[in-house]
Amino acid sequence: MRRLPLLLILGILPAVASALAPPRFPGPHSRPRRAAGAVGAVRGYDYETQYFRQRLDHFSFLDEGDGEVFFQQRYLVGRAGEWAGAGGPIFFYCGNEGDIAWFAANSGLVWEAAPRFAALHRYYGESMPFGSKEKAYNNSKSLAYLTAAQALADYAVLLTDLKRNLSSEGSPVVLFGGSYGGMLASWMRLKYPHIAVGALASSAPILQFEDIVPSTIFYDLVSNDFKRESLSCFQTIKDSWKALDDQGNGQDSLLKLSETFHLCQTVKTTGELSDWLSSAYSYLAMVDYPMPSDFLMPLPGNPIKEVCRKIDNQPDGTSILERIYAGVNIYYNYTGTVDCFDLNDDPHGMGGWDWQACTEMVMPMSYSEDRSMFPAYKFDYPSYENNCINSFGVRPRPQWITTEFGGHNISLVLEGFGSNIIFFNGLLDPWSGGGVLKNISESVVAIVAPLGAHHIDLRPATKEDPDWLVRLRESELDIISGWLLDYYGAKRGALFQRAAPMDSAAS
Amino acid sequence: MRRLPLLLILGILPAVASALAPPRFPGPHSRPRRAAGAVGAVRGYDYETQYFRQRLDHFSFLDEGDGEVFFQQRYLVGRAGEWAGAGGPIFFYCGNEGDIAWFAANSGLVWEAAPRFAALHRYYGESMPFGSKEKAYNNSKSLAYLTAAQALADYAVLLTDLKRNLSSEGSPVVLFGGSYGGMLASWMRLKYPHIAVGALASSAPILQFEDIVPSTIFYDLVSNDFKRESLSCFQTIKDSWKALDDQGNGQDSLLKLSETFHLCQTVKTTGELSDWLSSAYSYLAMVDYPMPSDFLMPLPGNPIKEVCRKIDNQPDGTSILERIYAGVNIYYNYTGTVDCFDLNDDPHGMGGWDWQACTEMVMPMSYSEDRSMFPAYKFDYPSYENNCINSFGVRPRPQWITTEFGGHNISLVLEGFGSNIIFFNGLLDPWSGGGVLKNISESVVAIVAPLGAHHIDLRPATKEDPDWLVRLRESELDIISGWLLDYYGAKRGALFQRAAPMDSAAS
Repeated sequence: MRRLPLLLILGILPAVASALAPPRFPGPHSRPRRAAGAVGAVRGYDYETQYFRQRLDHFSFLDEGDGEVFFQQRYLVGRAGEWAGAGGPIFFYCGNEGDIAWFAANSGLVWEAAPRFAALHRYYGESMPFGSKEKAYNNSKSLAYLTAAQALADYAVLLTDLKRNLSSEGSPVVLFGGSYGGMLASWMRLKYPHIAVGALASSAPILQFEDIVPSTIFYDLVSNDFKRESLSCFQTIKDSWKALDDQGNGQDSLLKLSETFHLCQTVKTTGELSDWLSSAYSYLAMVDYPMPSDFLMPLPGNPIKEVCRKIDNQPDGTSILERIYAGVNIYYNYTGTVDCFDLNDDPHGMGGWDWQACTEMVMPMSYSEDRSMFPAYKFDYPSYENNCINSFGVRPRPQWITTEFGGHNISLVLEGFGSNIIFFNGLLDPWSGGGVLKNISESVVAIVAPLGAHHIDLRPATKEDPDWLVRLRESELDIISGWLLDYYGAKRGALFQRAAPMDSAAS
Repeated sequence: MRRLPLLLILGILPAVASALAPPRFPGPHSRPRRAAGAVGAVRGYDYETQYFRQRLDHFSFLDEGDGEVFFQQRYLVGRAGEWAGAGGPIFFYCGNEGDIAWFAANSGLVWEAAPRFAALHRYYGESMPFGSKEKAYNNSKSLAYLTAAQALADYAVLLTDLKRNLSSEGSPVVLFGGSYGGMLASWMRLKYPHIAVGALASSAPILQFEDIVPSTIFYDLVSNDFKRESLSCFQTIKDSWKALDDQGNGQDSLLKLSETFHLCQTVKTTGELSDWLSSAYSYLAMVDYPMPSDFLMPLPGNPIKEVCRKIDNQPDGTSILERIYAGVNIYYNYTGTVDCFDLNDDPHGMGGWDWQACTEMVMPMSYSEDRSMFPAYKFDYPSYENNCINSFGVRPRPQWITTEFGGHNISLVLEGFGSNIIFFNGLLDPWSGGGVLKNISESVVAIVAPLGAHHIDLRPATKEDPDWLVRLRESELDIISGWLLDYYGAKRGALFQRAAPMDSAAS
């Protein structure tokens, strides 16, 4: 029978921020909340929950006497199927800011490829420093260790320990990750080549920093997705912001607006409403899959087509805002069970990603005047910084990610350095604007799906999958198999040669 | 005229531990103190001293409110000669635990190749967190950020800032470093390929961790250096430990021993004396250069030959210990100016390297019974750990370096990953036992000098340099030139192709 690789994947509880809470618009937090996992049933897969005593700060030697040093980090070990045993491949899913439901719905590729798995990200789910989420999220001092570099070191320490416990130090590890988790997967391969032989980084916007890509690209791509379905739909949305402002200025205007959009409470500014609308468009672009999905919300296949149909196909005389409502109702209420919408449905306050965005994950986001359907806005770092200082008492380090992980001239840097990374991007996904879209070398490759959305490759296979998606997943698994064959081949070679160095050193 | 690369190198003040202070023997600190720089005039080169506001902890977001966040890090910018200007190469010397005198005496290769330079290592010299050495070295909490990963991040942040200030973001940076600095140079290239195009890692014992190389190899190589010169010299030293113990047991024995060795004060145990002797042998092996040098102490060329000549050529009836004294007198008193030797000449107490050895730089060191001239000793981690807890209140993390930087199966890992690293080793140097001695790939190469000692390649050229050393340095500079040509060639290629990705992404 076929021997399956050991598979380790992330298990974290629901993210702090709900999918329903809108990103601010167009202020410093005007980025889609990704992977919020408000819905999505946990699929029936069989795993063990384990905990690992993890170090809070890998990069200092503050010791036992100096306060909290360790925390319990959760990881999952899949139990289905049969592992090849000691020396067999280990598939490892790099946990991100999502929850376990989101994971289950979106890691199908990994899940279907191998039976055992686990992973984790500090400060999300049950992997909480200081013993509880309340304490971990208490202030900037307790949150200080929620960083990408610390998360990567977590993976390195955990994997080293797991392999030792399995007496399987020779196992090649393959990393998987989507979105932020995909960024982590690619950075992990680059920073820890001795820990993992390769990485599938799906929809990983590792170039969405500083000025590497135009700051307008994310919302340009969102807008393109709508324009592509219907020019009138695009235009209606583009016109709606002024309509919103106009109507927000009249008497009883906010009450009337709130009624139009079936809000549970009257908004205090039109900005709250435009945030909510903008979020819907961004999320729709991310999940514009050809088949029904429930990644962020339960949605039909090709949801933007559905939204635009609603916006376009209204009786003559329907106002712009009524059309908009009919459209976004597809996103926020496809199941038709919502009586009214609560724009402030964010009971947790400080979200982990908000912290990360206010420290190192500074992704400048602007709205272009001509190409986008959003009101023009130019990213303003000083106000972004001020907002972070006010919200968290922390000053962002907007150049840190590129200093630590690179990004500028990535082809120039990686064409002669590094190997075994697949960057997958779907061009419908607005995050593809910050992704690697061209092959960099023979083994640092880009797989681009013109009709794909956010990490569609990682999603579980369905009967509705188009042929291109089936083939794309096969290509990815073929490449990964090649890494494993290379590894086992080179390892045998290394074993044969082991006696040589001593001789030559002595000669 | 020839355009010279911009050269940045380390400037730090005298290391905390004096070269005269012996490592403990054979306890947990039984490793040679390297690069202590007790002597060595600063050569006349012209540089500017600059300071950079550096972050104490790159890997957390403890902010202004949480105490000390920044410190002033010193670096040097060479002024001699002419830099190629914006876009021209930058040579950067990765500062280590040595002092500026040591640097001057040992960075000749870099110095002669280019006129401008600078570098630094936190917690050494004037680059002191918390405003002073007294405060920085106060306790384990203040020392907590003296780690290799933080030092590498210092270089990354500094170089990024320097290049921006020079409007020279496109400049390729070449890293240089010897000993611990060589480890940093190679790790820097591996972790920050976007910051530097290549590294010359000279005498960098990056494999001297855990069980990657035999724990006896360092002292086996020290012993070989003596055996190679004279079997009777080797045997006299091997016999001396018992003679020392025997004489240490008699009445007034320690007083008499102290007189034999011309010590200023009477030793309390024979162990103090054997530490002192063992240090001399180890350092002699490191600096067994064919020409006179003053790296650790002023010494003649081929100093081990001189030492063994003294040990061997004594009148009949000279005792073993008198022979030993005559030999080590070459090391500790070649200039003949010392009246008596002070074994406790370590006024600073806690040395920076001692802290590093007690946290992450855990290099297991044993003495083999058969191959070495030292009394047999097996590295005992529990007692090593206890000693660190007692000395610094810190628990070492002996697996951290290999988790963070790798080391196990290095050929297997790097043959398909990474590029542009030269590992130089001289086989007389006992640190070569933990070095990379075989080519790993086409551009991760080992240069091995059978007759070379500790980073002899980096030393300033002298008229006495043997041909092999002259050719070796030429080879290194040829390889580095190749990296620069590749970089400029690829960069031009990347510029030509820049328009392409947008087209293909949109298609």
